[in-house]
Amino acid sequence: MNDSSTLVTPAEQPMTWSGWGDPTLRPGLSPRAEAHLARWIGPLERHTPPVALEDVRTSPSRLDDTTRAALTAIVGQEGVRDDHRTRVEHAGGKSYPDLLRRRRGDAVAAPDAIVYPRSHDEVAAVLEQAVESGIAVVPFGGGTSVVGGVEPERGPFDSLIALDLSHMDRLVDIDEESLLATFEPGMRGPEAEAALRRRGYTLGHFPQSYVYASIGGYVATRSAGQASSGYGRIDEKVHAVRLATPAGELSFGRAPATAAGPDLRHAVVGSEGLLGVITEATLRVHHAPEQEVHEAWAAPSFAAGAEVLRELVQSDAAPDVCRLSDEDETRVFLQQTEGLKGSGFRGYLKLRGYGEGCLVILGWSGRSDGIALRRAAATRILREHGLLRLGAKPGEAWAHGRFSGPYLRDDLMDRGVFVETLETSTTWSRIPTLYTAVRDALTDTLTGLGTPPIVMCHISHVYESGCSLYFTWIARQDVGRELEQWQAAKQAAGDAIIGAGGTITHHHAVGTDHRRWMTDEVGSLGVAMLRSLKDTLDPTGILNPGKLLPDPDAG
Amino acid sequence: MNDSSTLVTPAEQPMTWSGWGDPTLRPGLSPRAEAHLARWIGPLERHTPPVALEDVRTSPSRLDDTTRAALTAIVGQEGVRDDHRTRVEHAGGKSYPDLLRRRRGDAVAAPDAIVYPRSHDEVAAVLEQAVESGIAVVPFGGGTSVVGGVEPERGPFDSLIALDLSHMDRLVDIDEESLLATFEPGMRGPEAEAALRRRGYTLGHFPQSYVYASIGGYVATRSAGQASSGYGRIDEKVHAVRLATPAGELSFGRAPATAAGPDLRHAVVGSEGLLGVITEATLRVHHAPEQEVHEAWAAPSFAAGAEVLRELVQSDAAPDVCRLSDEDETRVFLQQTEGLKGSGFRGYLKLRGYGEGCLVILGWSGRSDGIALRRAAATRILREHGLLRLGAKPGEAWAHGRFSGPYLRDDLMDRGVFVETLETSTTWSRIPTLYTAVRDALTDTLTGLGTPPIVMCHISHVYESGCSLYFTWIARQDVGRELEQWQAAKQAAGDAIIGAGGTITHHHAVGTDHRRWMTDEVGSLGVAMLRSLKDTLDPTGILNPGKLLPDPDAG
Repeated sequence: MNDSSTLVTPAEQPMTWSGWGDPTLRPGLSPRAEAHLARWIGPLERHTPPVALEDVRTSPSRLDDTTRAALTAIVGQEGVRDDHRTRVEHAGGKSYPDLLRRRRGDAVAAPDAIVYPRSHDEVAAVLEQAVESGIAVVPFGGGTSVVGGVEPERGPFDSLIALDLSHMDRLVDIDEESLLATFEPGMRGPEAEAALRRRGYTLGHFPQSYVYASIGGYVATRSAGQASSGYGRIDEKVHAVRLATPAGELSFGRAPATAAGPDLRHAVVGSEGLLGVITEATLRVHHAPEQEVHEAWAAPSFAAGAEVLRELVQSDAAPDVCRLSDEDETRVFLQQTEGLKGSGFRGYLKLRGYGEGCLVILGWSGRSDGIALRRAAATRILREHGLLRLGAKPGEAWAHGRFSGPYLRDDLMDRGVFVETLETSTTWSRIPTLYTAVRDALTDTLTGLGTPPIVMCHISHVYESGCSLYFTWIARQDVGRELEQWQAAKQAAGDAIIGAGGTITHHHAVGTDHRRWMTDEVGSLGVAMLRSLKDTLDPTGILNPGKLLPDPDAG
Repeated sequence: MNDSSTLVTPAEQPMTWSGWGDPTLRPGLSPRAEAHLARWIGPLERHTPPVALEDVRTSPSRLDDTTRAALTAIVGQEGVRDDHRTRVEHAGGKSYPDLLRRRRGDAVAAPDAIVYPRSHDEVAAVLEQAVESGIAVVPFGGGTSVVGGVEPERGPFDSLIALDLSHMDRLVDIDEESLLATFEPGMRGPEAEAALRRRGYTLGHFPQSYVYASIGGYVATRSAGQASSGYGRIDEKVHAVRLATPAGELSFGRAPATAAGPDLRHAVVGSEGLLGVITEATLRVHHAPEQEVHEAWAAPSFAAGAEVLRELVQSDAAPDVCRLSDEDETRVFLQQTEGLKGSGFRGYLKLRGYGEGCLVILGWSGRSDGIALRRAAATRILREHGLLRLGAKPGEAWAHGRFSGPYLRDDLMDRGVFVETLETSTTWSRIPTLYTAVRDALTDTLTGLGTPPIVMCHISHVYESGCSLYFTWIARQDVGRELEQWQAAKQAAGDAIIGAGGTITHHHAVGTDHRRWMTDEVGSLGVAMLRSLKDTLDPTGILNPGKLLPDPDAG
């Protein structure tokens, strides 16, 4: 039996401009959830819905007629759009500051036009035209970026187009012998998965953005899915990649492994649209699972739970989904999850001397016989470390809600709540320091602003050498200073990450929001390497200005 | 019980200038082996030993006194050498053309001096001096390159030094919690392994060059070990890396995984000394194995054997060592291996309808209970595909001789034999075409020169999407035209690889010998990306001229 949670119906409509996905699917805040929130951050007195679409402000399109005609000649009449809705839909991604601005009616920076190519050659031709016309180009996949990766930043250019890849949405080929599938970049998660499942395969890549995220976006941002412990990160899955760049075509990946110099695939995977536009990606796929199982365990503390995850992965016994919530996230999850509230879970833990307890979610996917063996190996380690098995129910509850987190943000923003996430990663030996540093930075900064937060954290990606930390925080908005409040929290957390030896992003990418730390991340000479690649592939700098690379004037 | 074959005693002396390792360990050609060779390629009538060391020709050192004094000020009197033996030992690596030249007494291109830094800072200071003096620098690790990677090519410079890293040979740190070990670059395979084993760990990296190869060399060349199916390639093991470059210091690797832009580790792993000098590498290590087991099976044919390896790796049941010889290599192995000749192996296979049979060598390493489970899973698949178990003996014979192959080459070169290897990799679906193309190219070319070869092949690295092919060929030397003969075979094989969609090198690296195909491998724009990195990190081009990047004039 397949887990239906990964086989969601592909969405038919683009995401709403003002928030996540299809607004009719929003769960809304229950009175019970409101009561809990009130206890944590104070009563929710405000109602702060987005303005109406017609009230969103844009600037008049600055695309000149010659360029428009040239673009139309390439992609056809239907392939160039500048209607109000389409421009607002492409005025940014889905970060908290993106949504803050658009919900207030500010889409002044919206692209002058949105161009929809249908092939590699059309992408190449559009780039050539953009160079000639001197206009900025923002490659636009699913539009799910939470770090400003598709912000319409013009850099030195007057005009800007979004290059929407959603019409390049074919599964080009499956090499069944080599377990490789070649996709066009605009295919979204559920479409790609459905096409593969029809042939008996899975990509096994399920980021929280899955329902709307695109294959090209996965590759451009070095995405990691919720089952990354089993199926691997996208950068481990890229066998070959093809790009159109202003300087010509790139095509890498002749073999599963090579010693022919530096691996240039890794120079374009994660390049966030700055070096070229991904027009095809060949990814490793797997036989579709016979079975998927999720279950939950309780660890006595976050530190003890992390120790068990480390033991699991270093013993080659990690489940495909491997997730540990800290004490605060566990409390919130249990309070918000239907069917678990009255389960006596807390009483049970207390009885066993576990205090509050930390929730561990594990998931296996694959052949039934393999799962049985792997579960047995994991169970032995979990029991040796004294964890308590909670059964399938909380595991299934997690799996059921795994893609709906972004909707909750819209509900909270409607009530004047500041809700944001960030993620990092480091070695196991540095994890305790990093955890405390980020938590303290967020708590101290927001408390200092008079908006004390609740800060939650989980581990969701484990490696032999370390793991990710994913933080979520909730606080009352600093009314009238919402962007400054976000900025202060972001700066404090980012500085804490760098200070504690973490990476500034484990899977959200750099975009506009993290680029100020890129010099800390890779050094000034590392940044110079990236700039030299940029100068070679995009000498006039039309591609996605203002992302990834730090501002040259920032020192 | 550990397998003693990986715990070889570290060598105390540098390798002999005229061939591999310690000449006193050479097995020599048995009369039986000579008889077999005579049957395959004709009688060995010639005796062609190397000249005496004192008869090897070098040019007078062209290092000027000012530069020599400056270098001595950095690394000390003992750290700059230009005696005849040291210069000849650094006059190249261990490729067939390297050895051809030196055995004849030609070391005219030998470095003007050999410099031995002891720290990152000394490496950085030497590079700074080299830029100032305008001299070429060849980073020199174990000196085991078989592709011309340490050839003293001067490029546009009058003088050249080899930067021998053998005095930087410490295990700097082990992070036991994160299973990471930090090494200086000059530590050689057995020293690194011994230092790790004393603490209960293994690197698990055993290329054929293991006894002399260095950690820095592994990383600079994207090396793959014989147990790569289990322990991974070196590029998968690099957690962090530090380099000294003419433009300053590089340091990458804050986390096990990151989405902070392109992964620049992969821009320096495999950079073959052209972008900087690796001064520290932090590699993933593993708990030392409780047990190592090798065993052999027989497949009815190379194609059938490849199919089984594919099934093993795609079922997540691949042993750590996974090796399949084709029919010709099987015949030679069995004829050359003591204790197997009279074993009735062939008769047994014939009886079972296997014809000649192809040898499969499998190896497991790890905890005994894990090995038992994994062997059971593999055995099931092997039996389902009708393979015959041959037992431990041929497996142990292979493991015993796994590092001695290079000695055999010296014995053969002493008798006027052309012996050479090359390796490639591609997807499973392209493997049959690639196999035939390379085999035919070598056979046709050498037969056309009047020196028909015996061409052998094995698979030794398997991936879910494909595998490596490793070719060995033996022919009579084309007397007086030995280099031209090598060149013709190399060109034909390389063109065949490119034509059939393979990578020009799976783990030997590019060096001088493969650079002519780099444009085929990564495209002209890919080459431009590499050049832009080179220009950024080594603007005056002092580092390892003539390697990796194709000749700009070659079009």
